[in-house]
Amino acid sequence: MTDRSPHPPGLPMAVPQPGLPERVRVYEVGPRDGLQAERTVLSADTKVELIGRLVAAGLGTVEATSFVNPARVPQMADASAVLGALDTASGTRHPVLVPNLRGLDDALAAGAREIAVFLSVTESFSRANLGRPRAEAEAEAARVVARARQEGLAVRGYLSMVFGDPWEGPVPIGEVVAATRRLRDLGAESVSLGDTIGVGTPGHVKALVAALDGAGVPLRSLALHAHDTYGQALANVYAALEAGVSEFDASTGGVGGCPFARSATGNLATEDLVWMLRGLGIETGVDLDALVQTSTWLAAHLGRPSPSRVVAALKERK
Amino acid sequence: MTDRSPHPPGLPMAVPQPGLPERVRVYEVGPRDGLQAERTVLSADTKVELIGRLVAAGLGTVEATSFVNPARVPQMADASAVLGALDTASGTRHPVLVPNLRGLDDALAAGAREIAVFLSVTESFSRANLGRPRAEAEAEAARVVARARQEGLAVRGYLSMVFGDPWEGPVPIGEVVAATRRLRDLGAESVSLGDTIGVGTPGHVKALVAALDGAGVPLRSLALHAHDTYGQALANVYAALEAGVSEFDASTGGVGGCPFARSATGNLATEDLVWMLRGLGIETGVDLDALVQTSTWLAAHLGRPSPSRVVAALKERK
Repeated sequence: MTDRSPHPPGLPMAVPQPGLPERVRVYEVGPRDGLQAERTVLSADTKVELIGRLVAAGLGTVEATSFVNPARVPQMADASAVLGALDTASGTRHPVLVPNLRGLDDALAAGAREIAVFLSVTESFSRANLGRPRAEAEAEAARVVARARQEGLAVRGYLSMVFGDPWEGPVPIGEVVAATRRLRDLGAESVSLGDTIGVGTPGHVKALVAALDGAGVPLRSLALHAHDTYGQALANVYAALEAGVSEFDASTGGVGGCPFARSATGNLATEDLVWMLRGLGIETGVDLDALVQTSTWLAAHLGRPSPSRVVAALKERK
Repeated sequence: MTDRSPHPPGLPMAVPQPGLPERVRVYEVGPRDGLQAERTVLSADTKVELIGRLVAAGLGTVEATSFVNPARVPQMADASAVLGALDTASGTRHPVLVPNLRGLDDALAAGAREIAVFLSVTESFSRANLGRPRAEAEAEAARVVARARQEGLAVRGYLSMVFGDPWEGPVPIGEVVAATRRLRDLGAESVSLGDTIGVGTPGHVKALVAALDGAGVPLRSLALHAHDTYGQALANVYAALEAGVSEFDASTGGVGGCPFARSATGNLATEDLVWMLRGLGIETGVDLDALVQTSTWLAAHLGRPSPSRVVAALKERK
């Protein structure tokens, strides 16, 4: 029963599932969330080329960079140069991550039209990763969001540790609902639910989305940010789709943590996501071949292969 | 936002989903389907040790070997020795693949209590992989199944190319339904639906299972054999679970095709499957830590790391 088949076709058969949306927004996080977890620091020119390739591949939202302290995240030291080189007045959205008012000033100076703020559902991760208690982080986020809204910027809120936390274990759904509502009350139009350590599973996803829906959070304001640390990312996306979520974060080629490295964050690969959505007959606007070529190009710059299954399968056909 | 978290917990939180089964059968195919796609030929002793470790890890069904032509599949030349060394009268099921009457004779002589036969939904794959037209392959399978049933053996039927075929493209659902019914009519109690090239997606899975149900095929007689070539395996399993399937094929550590190799078949890793089922609160009887240890041990024998995300994540905690 040796496999002697020729290479498989490049796209799955589309079999739409009743009740799922006709279109889904893919929120590309590779240039920000992806690269900031990579050891190899890319030049600003390479990052701008990466973002240009992603836009050319049809991605309508490409998070561009992060205005964090460059001493903490050297990969993002060129945030102003990268954002400044992009056409933020085009139809493509280029949100940038902003941790505080100083970052917001820099982002505004570089031409930001849309920002994202970041909070942890759990106290432990807030202290360990954001360097301050949750209440302090929320107070700062409130100031950032208020000022950003005054400036006419769109605001997304990231929530981390929505399923489990490495210190605190399983995270109660009620706490995630409360944190989501607080973020929305601050003025974040959309909230990305982050499975930071990848421990979410499909039933948990459905229970969380149902609880948010029941608490009056509009499903159209939600995104799922799944990590593939335990291989669950795409099953979780599918569960969220069935539960009514229609925006999904993903990173081209799965950059942002190789699953074989100790520092893995294991971002869901955009290609694997787009493949599934194609199979479900859901429109994303993404040219999968162009995206695979971009990931292959990026992998060469990062010096390691993409962990994306689709990239591995399709690049061999070339 | 650098990840400074400690290692995550070893198991996901169990959040059962209403309507899903309380228990699922994991049908382990690593020693047969997995190894036969691996270049490194293991000794019969190592295979027997592998099977013993899998049984000790709680797997109740471990396909042991394949009585194929050793000239075609050298890895399986020791089929009689491997099966002969197992306790086939124990509670653990050890099916063996049998392609023809000669293989059946050998399997019976070695103590087989349960066999599996193999057919392709498509004509192209039957000719290319089984070396004969579909009608001829079915006639031989009919003879094998009839004789096996006379001998009191349980019989499983494998169907390959149930979603797409590399030569013929998308495979019509009606043809899969017809092939499934023919296999059952021959006397196969259960049918494993094989996504041989990994092009299935969740909506397609649900449509296929619904069509089989509508055609009177009992859902309890079905298994899904998902391949992770495009990263879709676990999402497809979840879709099948929701559609009423309760048996899933998987290969410990994902052996049977590295996704980075041209010859990839990309078996779903048993660990990734068990992780999801745990998260759904579904009982499998499997000790995940023992399974990860077995995959790590096996990877050392095969000379390459496991492609399983769970194995990569959990073995780093040791």
